[in-house]
Amino acid sequence: MMLAVPLQEAVEQAAEAAEHGLEVPEFLFLLIVILASAKLLGELAEKIGQPAVLGELLAGVLLGSSVLGLLDPTVEVIHLLAELGVVLLLFQIGLETNLSRLLQVGLASTLVAIVGVVVPFVGGYAVAAALGLDVLPAVVCGAALTATSVGITARVLSDLGRLQEPESQIVLGAAVIDDIIGLVILAVVAQVVGGSELTAAGVATTTLIAFGFVALVVVLGRILVPPLFNLLARLGREETLATMAVVLAFVVCYLADMAGSALIIGAFAAGLTLAPTRHAHVIEHGVVKLAVFFVPIFFVAVGASVDVRQFADPQVLSVGAALIVVAIVGKVLAGYAPYWFKGKKLVIGVGMIPRGEVGLIFAQMGLTTGALTTGLFSALTMMVMVTTFMAPPLLKLLLPPTGKVDSESLGGVAEITTEA
Amino acid sequence: MMLAVPLQEAVEQAAEAAEHGLEVPEFLFLLIVILASAKLLGELAEKIGQPAVLGELLAGVLLGSSVLGLLDPTVEVIHLLAELGVVLLLFQIGLETNLSRLLQVGLASTLVAIVGVVVPFVGGYAVAAALGLDVLPAVVCGAALTATSVGITARVLSDLGRLQEPESQIVLGAAVIDDIIGLVILAVVAQVVGGSELTAAGVATTTLIAFGFVALVVVLGRILVPPLFNLLARLGREETLATMAVVLAFVVCYLADMAGSALIIGAFAAGLTLAPTRHAHVIEHGVVKLAVFFVPIFFVAVGASVDVRQFADPQVLSVGAALIVVAIVGKVLAGYAPYWFKGKKLVIGVGMIPRGEVGLIFAQMGLTTGALTTGLFSALTMMVMVTTFMAPPLLKLLLPPTGKVDSESLGGVAEITTEA
Repeated sequence: MMLAVPLQEAVEQAAEAAEHGLEVPEFLFLLIVILASAKLLGELAEKIGQPAVLGELLAGVLLGSSVLGLLDPTVEVIHLLAELGVVLLLFQIGLETNLSRLLQVGLASTLVAIVGVVVPFVGGYAVAAALGLDVLPAVVCGAALTATSVGITARVLSDLGRLQEPESQIVLGAAVIDDIIGLVILAVVAQVVGGSELTAAGVATTTLIAFGFVALVVVLGRILVPPLFNLLARLGREETLATMAVVLAFVVCYLADMAGSALIIGAFAAGLTLAPTRHAHVIEHGVVKLAVFFVPIFFVAVGASVDVRQFADPQVLSVGAALIVVAIVGKVLAGYAPYWFKGKKLVIGVGMIPRGEVGLIFAQMGLTTGALTTGLFSALTMMVMVTTFMAPPLLKLLLPPTGKVDSESLGGVAEITTEA
Repeated sequence: MMLAVPLQEAVEQAAEAAEHGLEVPEFLFLLIVILASAKLLGELAEKIGQPAVLGELLAGVLLGSSVLGLLDPTVEVIHLLAELGVVLLLFQIGLETNLSRLLQVGLASTLVAIVGVVVPFVGGYAVAAALGLDVLPAVVCGAALTATSVGITARVLSDLGRLQEPESQIVLGAAVIDDIIGLVILAVVAQVVGGSELTAAGVATTTLIAFGFVALVVVLGRILVPPLFNLLARLGREETLATMAVVLAFVVCYLADMAGSALIIGAFAAGLTLAPTRHAHVIEHGVVKLAVFFVPIFFVAVGASVDVRQFADPQVLSVGAALIVVAIVGKVLAGYAPYWFKGKKLVIGVGMIPRGEVGLIFAQMGLTTGALTTGLFSALTMMVMVTTFMAPPLLKLLLPPTGKVDSESLGGVAEITTEA
C-alpha cells in the first residue's frame, strides 16, 4: 500500500476543506480525481458495451464515502459545479430536441408521466404502510418513488444515439413532466413534513406556476430568442454566441427557480427556444465542449452521495428490495399507459426507471426533517441506486446503439453534424 | 432608478451568500453577470480597437465594489473558478508555445526578468523610503512593483495574434521567470513580515526548488507525456484526450504548488510538454472552448478586486502616481536590457508593465499582515490597475494585430489551424 499515506492525507485535506473552505490546490485535486476516474471508468464501461454514464456513476461510488472517501459531494464548489453540469446537460438535450416532435407525442408523455407518478406513489405508500410505518414516512417513501431522473435517461439515450426515436421523445417529455410533478410533490411533502396545513388551492397554484413557466418560456422564447440571436450574431462574433447561449440558459434557469419551477427544466426550455435558430449548431458545438467537462462532475457527485456500506443491514435490504420492485413495476406499467402507441412500450417504461438525483433529494429531505429513520433513508438510497444503475444497461439492451453515432460525446449526433 | 430595488436585493443576496454559502440560483446569477458583462464589454473594447481583455477588466471594475457591488471576487466558488480560468489560460499559452523558440531567447528573457525585478524593487523601495515609510512597508511596496502578470500579457499577445513574434517570446519567457522570482520574493517578504529570521540558504533553496520544478517538468514531461498521450489516443477516444490533457495540467499545477512553485507556472509547463505531440491541436481545440468560459471569470475577478473609490484621496493619488512612474520606467528599462536584440525593445518593456493579479496579491498580503496602511494599499492597487489597464492598448499600438488572425478567441491562431 504505497499510496496509503498520501491518500490518507488527501482524505484529511478533503475533510478539512469541507469545513474551512477549499484552497485552489485542493480544488484541483478534487477535479483531478473526478475527471480522471469519470473518463477512465466511462471508457471502460463503453469497452464492455455499457453507456459511459454507468462508469461515471461507479466512479462516484468509488470516490465517495462508500469506498475511498476522497469526494464529499456536499462540498460547496463541487455541488455547484455538479449542478452546472446537469444544467448544461439539459440545455444540450433541449438544443437537440425538436419541439414539434415532442408535442406530437405530448399526450403519450403526459399519460406516462401521470401513471408513472400515481402507481409508484400508491405502491410505495402501501409497501411502507404494510411494513408498519406511520403516514408521514410512508408518504415520503411514496414521493421518492415518483421521481424520474431526466438527466440519467436523457444522457443514456444520447450516449446510445437514440434521442430522436419516438420512444425516446415520449420518455423525454414524460421525464420533464415528471420532474415538474416531482417538484410539486416535493413542495407539498415539505409542507406536510413541516407541519403546515395543506390546501387544494395551494397545490393547484404550485402546479400551475410550475407548468405555466415552461409553457411561457417556450412560447415567448420561440418568438424572442431567434431574432435576439440573429442580432447578436450580426453585432458580435459567432464564437461569442455559445457563451451568450449559456448565459441565456442560466437566465432561464434563474427565472425558473424564482417561479418555483426547477432549474434543469429552465435549462431544457432554454435549449428548446434555441433549437430552431440558424445558430443552433455553432452553439451546440461550444456547449458540448463545456458539457464534456461539467457533466461528469454531476454523475460522479450523484454516485458519491450514495453510501453502499449501509446496504449490508438485512432490514435495509428487505425494505429496499420491496421498494425496488414497486419502483420498477410502477414505471414499466407507466410505459404501457399510452396503449395506442405502436413502438416499444417497454423502452418507455425502462427509460422512466432511474430515480437518480431526484430520488436522492427526496430521501435527503426525509432524513433531514426527521420523517425518515437512517434505515429507511438507506433503503430509499438503495432503491435509487439500483434503479439508476439498472436503466443504462437495460436501455442499451432494448435500444442497441445506431451504427452512425459516435457515442462518446454527450452530443454525439450533434458533434458529427457540426463537424460535417 | 427602476433597477434600484432588484439590484439592492441582488447585492444583499451576494453579501449573504458570501457568508452562508451560495445557493445554485445565486451562483447562476453571478455567472450571468460575469459572463454577460465580460462578453459585452469585451466585444465593445474590440469595436473601438482594443484587446478584449480590457473590456473584461472594466466589466470587473463595474461589477465590483467600485460601482455596482454585485460581485465579491473573494466568494469561494468565484475565486476557485477564476483560478481555474488563469490555469486554463496559461495551459493554452503553453500549448501554443514552441519550447525551442522560447529557449532561443532564453538569455534575453532572463535578463529582462532580472532587470525588471531589480529596478522596480529598488525604485519602489526608494520612493517609499523618500516618503518617510518604515523599512517593512517600503519592502512590500518594492516587492509589489516587481511582479508581472503573465496572464494579462499572454492574453493580450494572443488577442493580437502576436504570440509567435520574437518580442512576444521574450516577454513570455521573462514573465514566467518573473512569476517564479515573484514567488520567491513573496515567500521571503512573507517571512520578513511574519518576523522570521531570513537566511541566504533559505532563499537559495526556495529559488532552486521553484526553478528546478519547471525544468524537471519540462524535461521529464517531454519524455513521458507524448508516449502517454499516444497510448491514451490508441486506447480511448480522441475526444477524451482534451479532458485528460486538462487533468494532466491540473496534476502538474498541484505538484507545482506542493513543490513551492506557482500553479500557473505548472499549467504553462504542462502545456509545453503537450505542445509537440500529434494531438496538440485536438487538445487545444477542447481547451479553447473551456477557456472561453473560464478565462473571463479570472479577468472580471481581477477587475472586481479593485476599489477605485479609494483613489479619490489626494495622498493616495500622489503616492500612487510616484509608484506608477517607477513601475513603468522599471519595466521599460528591462525591455532594453537585452541590448543585442534587434527587434522592438519597447514592446518587451511594455509587455512587462501589467502587474495584474500578482501585484494585487502582494498588496493584499501587505494589508492583511498590517505592513501596509489602507492608504498605501490603495496606492499600490492604483499602481496595479493603471499598469494593467495601460498595457493592452499600448501593446496594440506597438504591435498592430496581424490580418490573418481571428482575435476574439483566446487561441485565435490555433482555432483557425484546427478547423482547417
